[in-house]
Amino acid sequence: MSDSLKVAIAGLGTVGAGTVKLLQEQAELISMRCGRDVTVTAVSARTAGRDRGFDMTGIAWFDDAVEMAEKADADVVVELIGGSDGIAKRCTEAALRAGRHVVTANKAMLAHHGTELAALAEENNAALAYEAAVAGGIPVIKALRDGLAGNRISSLYGILNGTGNYILTTMRETGRDFADVLEEAQALGYAEADPSFDIDGVDAAHKLAILTSLAFGSPVNFDAVTVQGIRNITSVDIEYAELLGYRIKLLGIASETEFGVEQRVHPTMVPINSPIASVEGVYNAIVTEGDWVGRTVLEGRGAGAGPTASAVVADIMDIACGRHGYAFGVPVKALRAHEVGNLDQLTGAYYIRLQVMDVPGVFADIATALRDAEVSMEQILQRGRAPGEIVPVVMTVYEVKGSQLRQALDRIEALDAVVEPPHVIRIEEL
Amino acid sequence: MSDSLKVAIAGLGTVGAGTVKLLQEQAELISMRCGRDVTVTAVSARTAGRDRGFDMTGIAWFDDAVEMAEKADADVVVELIGGSDGIAKRCTEAALRAGRHVVTANKAMLAHHGTELAALAEENNAALAYEAAVAGGIPVIKALRDGLAGNRISSLYGILNGTGNYILTTMRETGRDFADVLEEAQALGYAEADPSFDIDGVDAAHKLAILTSLAFGSPVNFDAVTVQGIRNITSVDIEYAELLGYRIKLLGIASETEFGVEQRVHPTMVPINSPIASVEGVYNAIVTEGDWVGRTVLEGRGAGAGPTASAVVADIMDIACGRHGYAFGVPVKALRAHEVGNLDQLTGAYYIRLQVMDVPGVFADIATALRDAEVSMEQILQRGRAPGEIVPVVMTVYEVKGSQLRQALDRIEALDAVVEPPHVIRIEEL
Repeated sequence: MSDSLKVAIAGLGTVGAGTVKLLQEQAELISMRCGRDVTVTAVSARTAGRDRGFDMTGIAWFDDAVEMAEKADADVVVELIGGSDGIAKRCTEAALRAGRHVVTANKAMLAHHGTELAALAEENNAALAYEAAVAGGIPVIKALRDGLAGNRISSLYGILNGTGNYILTTMRETGRDFADVLEEAQALGYAEADPSFDIDGVDAAHKLAILTSLAFGSPVNFDAVTVQGIRNITSVDIEYAELLGYRIKLLGIASETEFGVEQRVHPTMVPINSPIASVEGVYNAIVTEGDWVGRTVLEGRGAGAGPTASAVVADIMDIACGRHGYAFGVPVKALRAHEVGNLDQLTGAYYIRLQVMDVPGVFADIATALRDAEVSMEQILQRGRAPGEIVPVVMTVYEVKGSQLRQALDRIEALDAVVEPPHVIRIEEL
Repeated sequence: MSDSLKVAIAGLGTVGAGTVKLLQEQAELISMRCGRDVTVTAVSARTAGRDRGFDMTGIAWFDDAVEMAEKADADVVVELIGGSDGIAKRCTEAALRAGRHVVTANKAMLAHHGTELAALAEENNAALAYEAAVAGGIPVIKALRDGLAGNRISSLYGILNGTGNYILTTMRETGRDFADVLEEAQALGYAEADPSFDIDGVDAAHKLAILTSLAFGSPVNFDAVTVQGIRNITSVDIEYAELLGYRIKLLGIASETEFGVEQRVHPTMVPINSPIASVEGVYNAIVTEGDWVGRTVLEGRGAGAGPTASAVVADIMDIACGRHGYAFGVPVKALRAHEVGNLDQLTGAYYIRLQVMDVPGVFADIATALRDAEVSMEQILQRGRAPGEIVPVVMTVYEVKGSQLRQALDRIEALDAVVEPPHVIRIEEL
């Protein structure tokens, strides 16, 4: 048997502590599968001395994660501190510069600095592995890099944020409002005290930027992601979606178009019988289209200590078995920046809800604005009439360019009888 | 760049020819991802000279696959001949003995000889890779071996045969009979001229035995799989299943129980809203339960030239990148045979359809037989009455041991008014 693989872990929150526990509890299984032992030799966290539910015997303590990354007796440094910059990044860089492999769950850091960190890893002949950074326990990074490696990926989309999906699922099931369900999610520990990364789509965008780089062989380009969160989704829209045969999901979508690779995160109406529509609660799912393999769907728990530790340990075991390659599938110098597509150029169908004063002539004005911008209505729903009151008018429109739709909506929003900015949700017939 | 990886391919049916085409068409992508070229240097098939849609320049032809495995200028031999024994096995053994890596899509061979072939691979320091043998393009072997490697798997189940699933889906959607739909599937090329491996569950059992070995760390034990196919599923049962809120799927199931690891393939009623129920047509899906990761679902195309070639090429690329490990996740000497569980010991719920002469007293006789065997009825359906005629009586029973149920059914079958052997389908609340 080869020498033991020595692992240092920076950050002992639920995922960090879970990773140590997994490595200790399944030590025999892991050793059998890797042909060598995997041993935790050092840890670092903000507060020393606390009981974190694992055995500290033989594990060195470091107050400073960067010092640990440089000096610990370790082959692999696991970065579970979080945050795109600061200590997490310094710890990662120090480990790579010291020729140590890095395993990380840090999507923010990879979304902002993934390409340069991958280059640093290559220079130092070290692995940069990040299965845990995207979709928790689902082995989607390995699927794209290894399992589907013979394919060109033409598109991928998925539910990449468990908190957001939990909120949308609960809103639909209970008819409750966004703010109310968010508060509950925070009480249950699903959402952070500052939930903005989850509900504003930033977390999903981080993950999408990483997946896009790996799937399309391009440098990570987080700035190119169009991002819209779920704050403005109301239970009214969820109800209309059901009436129209759709479900609202916060999707990350990346696809190759004639205008380049577009990356976007936004609430999306998907047909109720599409596979992604039935992925509920804290589950994540990713759908990929490869030129030889066709459609592949991967689904599982997107967060939590157990699934995330499972992904971290899978990466550690890859390193123990000598199975590690380029961070983004190809050498950094072979990554090719793509043209960046955006929704203005692309066509799509849309759901539109207007809040309208029910006065004579308002429909005609709306219809004229749509016609002048060459936007074709597919269906229109107005339940009940209430002359002189404010009523919702819901419609879906056929494929239009984003720029065309905006032109029509600007005119509609300017109408006296339209009392709120239009609520617009893109429809994808996935 | 390292030397080119040289590949010899035995068998040039749709998958073999597809594999050569994939390797040629994506040569640049593959080379970039592996850091070296992958080149087809030799092929072998029954008939020489035929145009198979790829460029033969620089490729040596062998009439004899075994001779090719021994003598071709190749690092990897890809076995796509098929069949559990004969030339496929001799070719595989010859390649491994010559220290060449083997990639195969041959589930029958692995189900019958997987453990000994894995031992031969280890002795000769060669890889035995078989992603394409199970569930076509879905990277389930790599998911179990690498992506979920830190987990103990407690159960797995899935739709492992695309032909069977296509037939059941079409029967449900059209209301047509088994024989009729099978004929169509044969005309469309989905089912072989001899369809028995698909419809009798043997193909699914081959795949299940392989998955079980990998997931539970045991020698491949195909003989321990309880197998029942879909020949006896009627459109009447499919209709009743829908009425009861279930869908009928041919599932392969392996799970750890107090009696050992049980492996079974049989038509199964699953709740209509379970994820596996919506996997339709030629798609396959595998659901696994790991102790840390929880439930993971993988879905994709289970057969066909493109998906299968995608899986074969992924294995070749693993070898090109130096990513290969033990065939069944651990060294052969570490594989542990489990106790074998069976349905007689296990409890389960069941659907039962009886064809009954509608005469007074028959219900009482049936109910008595159930009561005496301590089998509890959950619901009973009888649509319409027809005194003196034969009518279906459909019921579901709560969890019972298989042996108990058999006792009740033996007595029921012996009743004069019961004119056919009972139609029994196990229910799984997946």
